[in-house]
Parts: sequence; C-alpha cells; structure tokens
Amino acid sequence: MIEPKILKGFKDTLPEIMIIKKKLIKKLEKTFENFGFLPIDTPALEYTEILLGKGGGETDKQIYRFRDHGGRDVALRYDLTVPLARFVAANYNELIFPFKRYHIAPVWRGENTQKGRYREFYQCDFDILGENSINADLEILLLIKNGFDQLNISDYTININHRKLLYSFLEQIGFQDNSIKILRTIDKIYKIGKDGVIKELVDNIKISLKDAENIINFLNIDKEEDLGIREEKIFETLDNFKNILTDTGKKAVEELTNIFNNLKKLNILKYFTFNPAITRGLDYYTGIVFESFINDRIEFGSVCSGGRYDNLTRLYSKNIITGVGGSFGLDRLIALLESKNILKPRKSITDVIIFNLDNNLLYYYNKAANILRKNDIKTEIIFEPKKIVNQFKIAEKKGIEYVIIAGEEEANQERFNLKNIKIQEEKKNLTIQEIIKIIKGK
Amino acid sequence: MIEPKILKGFKDTLPEIMIIKKKLIKKLEKTFENFGFLPIDTPALEYTEILLGKGGGETDKQIYRFRDHGGRDVALRYDLTVPLARFVAANYNELIFPFKRYHIAPVWRGENTQKGRYREFYQCDFDILGENSINADLEILLLIKNGFDQLNISDYTININHRKLLYSFLEQIGFQDNSIKILRTIDKIYKIGKDGVIKELVDNIKISLKDAENIINFLNIDKEEDLGIREEKIFETLDNFKNILTDTGKKAVEELTNIFNNLKKLNILKYFTFNPAITRGLDYYTGIVFESFINDRIEFGSVCSGGRYDNLTRLYSKNIITGVGGSFGLDRLIALLESKNILKPRKSITDVIIFNLDNNLLYYYNKAANILRKNDIKTEIIFEPKKIVNQFKIAEKKGIEYVIIAGEEEANQERFNLKNIKIQEEKKNLTIQEIIKIIKGK
Repeated sequence: MIEPKILKGFKDTLPEIMIIKKKLIKKLEKTFENFGFLPIDTPALEYTEILLGKGGGETDKQIYRFRDHGGRDVALRYDLTVPLARFVAANYNELIFPFKRYHIAPVWRGENTQKGRYREFYQCDFDILGENSINADLEILLLIKNGFDQLNISDYTININHRKLLYSFLEQIGFQDNSIKILRTIDKIYKIGKDGVIKELVDNIKISLKDAENIINFLNIDKEEDLGIREEKIFETLDNFKNILTDTGKKAVEELTNIFNNLKKLNILKYFTFNPAITRGLDYYTGIVFESFINDRIEFGSVCSGGRYDNLTRLYSKNIITGVGGSFGLDRLIALLESKNILKPRKSITDVIIFNLDNNLLYYYNKAANILRKNDIKTEIIFEPKKIVNQFKIAEKKGIEYVIIAGEEEANQERFNLKNIKIQEEKKNLTIQEIIKIIKGK
Repeated sequence: MIEPKILKGFKDTLPEIMIIKKKLIKKLEKTFENFGFLPIDTPALEYTEILLGKGGGETDKQIYRFRDHGGRDVALRYDLTVPLARFVAANYNELIFPFKRYHIAPVWRGENTQKGRYREFYQCDFDILGENSINADLEILLLIKNGFDQLNISDYTININHRKLLYSFLEQIGFQDNSIKILRTIDKIYKIGKDGVIKELVDNIKISLKDAENIINFLNIDKEEDLGIREEKIFETLDNFKNILTDTGKKAVEELTNIFNNLKKLNILKYFTFNPAITRGLDYYTGIVFESFINDRIEFGSVCSGGRYDNLTRLYSKNIITGVGGSFGLDRLIALLESKNILKPRKSITDVIIFNLDNNLLYYYNKAANILRKNDIKTEIIFEPKKIVNQFKIAEKKGIEYVIIAGEEEANQERFNLKNIKIQEEKKNLTIQEIIKIIKGK
C-alpha cells in the first residue's frame, strides 16, 4: 500500500473551503466583467528562459524547473505577470488595446513553507494594458472598490501613493543612486515600524541619522498603525509636496490630485487614503502604487495591491506597452473572511433532499428532482431505502434544510410531504409547484 | 530580446475562447451543484509514487516528472482520478459518504501532439463514491442528460453498456484469459470498423475467425455508424442476453434493465441506447460503462464517458470505496459546438460603452457606470476624449451594442443620450434608470 501523502507546502481543498473559494472567485469575476475586463489563460509550463527573463533574483531559487521529454528547459509559472507579458507580445495583433484582462489561476513557488505560505496558490490579476491615461489608474481603483462591495466588505482602506513622489524627493536630497534600496526598506514600515526603518537606513544603506529621519518625516506617518492621510488633509499634503518637489515630483502630485479629486466627486473618498509610505517591493512600478487593508486586520497584510508600470513587454517585444493593474490575494481574503466569521464553511449546498422509501418509486423521486433542479433548487435523492430515522440523520449531517417524503400513496396522487428540519415544520400533500414556492421563499 | 514562444503542445487561451470556456464550465458547475455534487481541488504536483501507483503503462512515459528543490521525486497530475483516490484515502474521515464530488482542472501529459491533442488540457470529472446502489449509476446518467440540457444540446446519444456482460460471454466461450485484450480491441470499433476489429482479434489475439465473428455478433452492431440499440428493442435484446448468459451476465442484464426501465418511466429513453460494443479502454471499470456522442458529430468521439468501478482507493487505503462517475470532454465540447456554430466567439462581453467627451466629466461617466454595473450591466468608459468618430470605431471593433454619449449640457441636467449601434437608433436626454430599462430589454 502507498501512503496517501501530499507534498510539503501543498494542500487538498475540501468541499467546505472550495465552496467558499468558488463563491469569492465568482464575485470577483463578476466585478471584472462588469468593468469589461476579459478572461485569458496561459500554460502552467513555459520555457524557463521566458519566465526568468534576465533572472538573477530570488525567483531563480524558487522556481520549479526541469527538463521535459524533449530535453527542453521548462518551468512552472511563479506568477501571472510574466506570462501576461509573453502573452501580449505573442498575441499582439489579436488583441484590442487598451486591453483589459483578468486571470485567476494557480502559480507555484518552491519557497519556505513557514508562516502559512504555500508552494501552490492562486493569483487573481487584473490589468489595463496599452493605456497611458491616468483615467485607467482611476478605473483600477474603482474596480477594487467594487470588488470589495461584491464581497460585502466595507471596512477597508485602499492606500494610494505615487512612486515618483519619493524618487523625486530622494533625488533632491542626493540619494538617487540608493533609491531602490531605500524604497524596499520603507516598504517594511508596517512590519518593522518607523524606528526599524530608520535603523536599517542607517545600518545597511549608510545614511546619516538626520537624513533617515528626514525621509521618514516625508512619509507623513504619525503612528505605525496609521493607514495614510484621509479626506481633506490629502489635498493639503499634496499641495505641500507640490511646493517642495521638483518637476518629476510635481507631475506625480498632479496625477494623485486628479485621482483624489475624482474619488471625492464620486463621494467615495473615505475608502481611500494617500499614504506616502506605500512603495511596493517590486521594481517595475513607475507610477501610482496601492495596497488595500481590512481596517481591523492590518496584520493580515494587503489583500489587493498593484500599480502602474512603464513597459510590460520590454523583454519580449519592440512594442512599448504601458499598463496599470493589481491583484487580489484570494487565499488571504478567505483566511481573513473566515477570521471575521463572515464566511462559514458548510458541508453541503443542497437545498432539499428527497427520501427514498421504495426503490420502485425512484422514477417518481427523479421526476420531482428534475423539476426542482430546472427551477435552480439544488436537489439530492437518497440512494438506498434505509430506515427513515437514518435518512433524517443524513439530511442533518449535511445540514440540508428541507426534506421531501413521499410513499406510494403520495405518488398515486402526485403529491409530496415537505419537512423543514430547521424549524421542525411539516406540510403534507403538496404539489411540486407548491414546494418550489416554499423553498424559494416566495 | 527573448522570443515570446510557447511550448509545443501548449496554447494561450484568448478572451474570445476563454469566454466560451468559462460559460461552459459555469453551466456544467450548475448541473453538478443542482445534483448536490461538491467541488474539490487537489495539488497539480504530487509524489510520482502516488500518481504512477503500480505503474508500467503508457502513463509512465507521458508523465511530467522531475526532482524538486528537496530532491523529492514529483510529477504533474495526468488525470483527476488518481488524485481523487489519494484525496479520498487521505481525507476519509472528513468526508460524508456517499461522497459526490466534481473537479474541473487542468492535467498534463507529454504525449505526441499530433491530431490536435494538447499536452495541457482540462478535465471535468464527477463521481459518486462509497455507494453500491445502481440508483447512483442512474443519477450519473441523469446528470449527464441535465448537463447536455444546460448546454442547449439536444441531438446526443448516451450509449450504455455493462462490462460484465461481455466478460460473462467471453468466459462462456472460453476467452476469460484474453478478456481485457479483447475488450480493448472492441473499444476501437468506431475507429477501425467491424472488419478491423475482427482482423485484430484474429491477427493479434489469435482467435479463430469463427469466434471473432461470434464476438462481433454479440455486439449487435449492424452498421458502424449505429449508436446502439434503441427504445423497445433494448428490452428484447436484454431478454435474449438473459437467456444465453450465466449468473454474472444475468446480474448485469438485471442492472441494465433496471436502469433502462427507469429511463423509460422518466420519458427520456430516446436519449439513451444499449450498446454492447462500448467497453471503455481503461481496465478499472467493473459495472456499467457509457459514452456519449453528438449524433451528427460521431467523428469527434465521446464527449462524456465513464462507468462504475470496484475499489477506487485500492492502492492507498484499506477502506474499500466503490464508485461510479464520468468526465465531460471540455475542449472537445468547445470544438464541437464551434463546428456547429452554436458558440460564436466574441471579442467582448460588454453591454454598453460610455464615450469620453471631456476629462472633466469623468466623475459623471463613472457615477453612471457605477449604477449600471450595480444593475449587472457590463459597462466600459473610454479613457481618452478622442474624436467621436474614433470612439465609435472602438465600440464597433468590440462589437458593443449600446453607446452612451453625454457632454456638459447633459451632465448639468443629469441626462444621457443612448445609441443602439446595431439598429442605428438614438434616444436623447434619458435618465440612467430609463437607460437601464432599455438595455435590460424591459
């Protein structure tokens, strides 16, 4: 016998979690499609050369890489962004630009499995490609808000920043050469705190304490748990920045002001903050960047992040394709909604179960089931004519609300008895149409 | 620059195909859930030992197998049945039996890519586990019928047979030792014809011409394009079989008679045939087996196949778990529906596009879009205030039916102009609620 073990860092998804996951995916897909985003899919396996690009980072160590039957150097995709770049370069002439796509699919990373991280997990990406207008950035932010609406989440904050704000400031104070390193350090502020960032800037990047404090002050964070600047103070702060920054910075301020003005006019500014401490770890962002937190679960990290980038297909094409997009953290969202008791795992999604009193009546049960199912009522039939008490046990174990009981007498009259187990109420001799009305609550 | 090439046997899925694929998946998911089947997921990567089991077949050569970072011998799943067996063995105590599950996911096989076969393709499996009752077999068949109904396919034939019928017959005429080889040969009858099967039986399995003809006669196929025995003739044929077969065969006949009787009582017998030539290539089936064909596209092969098996978890557990299930061929279905012009690829699924006449009105456009989207109307906004003729071109290229046009004047009155491009009809000064009614066709 072979032990039915699973690989470290991988997991089975049981029905109770899969039901939730599919529900979430469905809601996000609806959001994407309501905004005119289209689905695509790309292969799980690609040439390693494609996935690693110039390579040299952490990715090289984490990627699942091997030789296939034809001796090709292949690897499992570790994100959906690199395959998107390859996809757009390869299918450029087939696509209508601006190209708005979403892609919900698993990716694989052989990273350390501590801290609840898995080696196989879903990404849920959405991007607008080939559009420079700041209006596309606004659309991405509105889409995220709509996504939270669909998921019935209301206590969230979408933190917005602009990469060039900090770049411009760092340039002015003479740190242009260290800017990427400094941004990556600032990115840790919600993990290691202000003092931690100052210490790392001084110890690791050899910046003077005064300069480090100067940088931290620029971030406008009073307390570490602050999620940025809110409401009218946003515009004041942006005005201040405009006065102290050079041209690149001024342009960034203008773009941010444009976005925040629109959010204000749309009466949804309260869901957004201006947070100069949000930098995103990744190097490829060049414009606005954002992270989204559930207000009372900041420790879960951002559940939706992204930003604008200059040239997606740089490595694979001569066409310059700018874009803006983001990604919902699906597994993180599930964990979070479970922790808030918003999502309750269920053993079944069946609405009604038909008891089997007699195998000779199976056609009668199936006829009824067929009508119920055509009315979108999820219906099961018990396979074996067990003792009725055992059939009730099955219904209870599955948590099914309604049971239908019919013997020969009822069958002869085309009638059914319906019992609501939750409230222990039984109605006798109903037609199938009466049952449909009751179950649908109409 | 890196050439954006894709691995042989793999493909990108562009939006127009992905829209169709998702639609099909949604309809099948609905079917499964209407029958109380629950979704699960398993890892793409497993221990090779788990996937190959005893190994030794074609699978060994086709499987994508490699060593991971920890030196483990791992492989990509090549079907969803073996992972299901491992899943059920590993999670036995968490599941409620009979366990009805579905699983729609990609699998990978490094097989030859001729004849439109891909190395990555979706499987769409559904099974009832831990239930011996023939009523479960009936449910599987009814589910397939409902699946076709959901897909708006009506000209199909579900061919049913019982493995033990032929086994019993072969035993009686002294071929029990060759039965698996003989069944595999018969399985090719729709590809190589009756004469082809007779030739292979004689040449490869060294059966006398008379015995081979005897076997072929047992299959009750008059012409190669026949899809089995229909209506009342089913019961006659089964009666004949009952008289000539021994006990094992008689029991199989009884099970089939039970199933066909129920299908008759449910008034859906015309969608099913009894086809003694259906054997399924795979060895693990032990009871009923079935294949489904679209009547005028038999050459596409079966679009939904399956059967009953004795012990799914044999290799991984001491618990004996019988089951019955099947699998829709998703990619084959898409190709087939396209060939019948039932599915027409579309460049967009957007209902209405709002023109951008002025960036200062963006908040106004977005406010309208927000209301439309909340009413499940898929809405886009054009990002840049281009010439109006170019905005019309965008709408046409995407095949969007409705455009909304509003300038400052309309915005001041909270009104919009709506144009239906298809019928070239424009309505002026509408409220957003009026627009919703028109687009929803109410």
